[in-house]
Amino acid sequence: MAEGSDDIQALIALMSRLPGLGPRSARRVVLHLIRKRAGQMAQLAQLLDSVAQHSRECMTCGNITDRDTCAICADPDRATGEICVVEDVADLWALERGHAFKGRYHVLGGTLSALDEIGPEDLGIPNLVDRIQRERATEVILALNATVDGQTTAHYIADALDSTGVTVTGLAQGVPIGGELDYLDDGTISAALRARRRL
Amino acid sequence: MAEGSDDIQALIALMSRLPGLGPRSARRVVLHLIRKRAGQMAQLAQLLDSVAQHSRECMTCGNITDRDTCAICADPDRATGEICVVEDVADLWALERGHAFKGRYHVLGGTLSALDEIGPEDLGIPNLVDRIQRERATEVILALNATVDGQTTAHYIADALDSTGVTVTGLAQGVPIGGELDYLDDGTISAALRARRRL
Ligand SMILES: [Zn+2]
Ligand SMILES: [Zn+2]
Repeated sequence: MAEGSDDIQALIALMSRLPGLGPRSARRVVLHLIRKRAGQMAQLAQLLDSVAQHSRECMTCGNITDRDTCAICADPDRATGEICVVEDVADLWALERGHAFKGRYHVLGGTLSALDEIGPEDLGIPNLVDRIQRERATEVILALNATVDGQTTAHYIADALDSTGVTVTGLAQGVPIGGELDYLDDGTISAALRARRRL
Repeated sequence: MAEGSDDIQALIALMSRLPGLGPRSARRVVLHLIRKRAGQMAQLAQLLDSVAQHSRECMTCGNITDRDTCAICADPDRATGEICVVEDVADLWALERGHAFKGRYHVLGGTLSALDEIGPEDLGIPNLVDRIQRERATEVILALNATVDGQTTAHYIADALDSTGVTVTGLAQGVPIGGELDYLDDGTISAALRARRRL
């Protein structure tokens, strides 16, 4: 038992499986927390517990929230008729940090993928079409990653929305080929949004 | 409020201050945990709470443990008369992973530093000298980092132990100049320990 106690070893093992961390960084984080335990560790435990208990998906858009309806869907100022479709909550957060978009979102939770057998139903694309019609949206911005799967999904959604008459746009070229939104700086993502083009 | 809820934002802020993490990696970790919340997040909260409550320093060697005396100090097979002095618990863990040392440890918790006004008393060096005499240790291995402060501290301790008659050794050259133990691979650290030299 090299690392102090069974609980410490279990904590390191659990942390080393988090994205971006490995065994070495997990050990450093855990040692850091043990040294600061009076403050940070108890606070971290309490926040993790609270977030675990209260986080859920917004029933309307799929954003993560601690209520039935997220703050963006609940804000009447954001009823602009524009709905921005993203793959992931991380992309929604990235767009919000850019402060360029004033409408609402729709989180798919992934992309179509023949390989992983993810079809339109798995991503709730029929529900998205219903929502667009129910809310009489004027514009749908497909802010999907510039990857093959992201662009395949964008074309599929554009086709599915064809009969609704809504304007469908995509982010401007400015998102690098193969680029993932969450890795772009906030200025690039805002510029690409402002220069969005009709698909 | 871009990131879901006040608690989520606080959790991201706290995580982004951990060593090796920044805002982007903290956001990815928190999103990952929220997606897995049924399992990993509650488990992580519980382990953090348990480790925060039960972790303390071994009264004998300064290792982190959940008892008064750590498993290494409590193990009679490790009463070899050899005491390995390290700067930090991370270094003790690194040596244990190498499986080359069968004695006991002494964790200084830092190095002498004129700049940071850290003197021998702050590192408990008088207590170390007492312990060496009380336990009638036969060899003290100074496994300090190959940095200026680490080597200054090693020479200071070697001088302080001069009158006790104990054999004082250091790790073999093999630890690169300026290298920090916790960044070495386990094989290098074991080889350097086996080839340790008398100071
Ligand atoms: Zn929402
Ligand atoms: Zn101990």
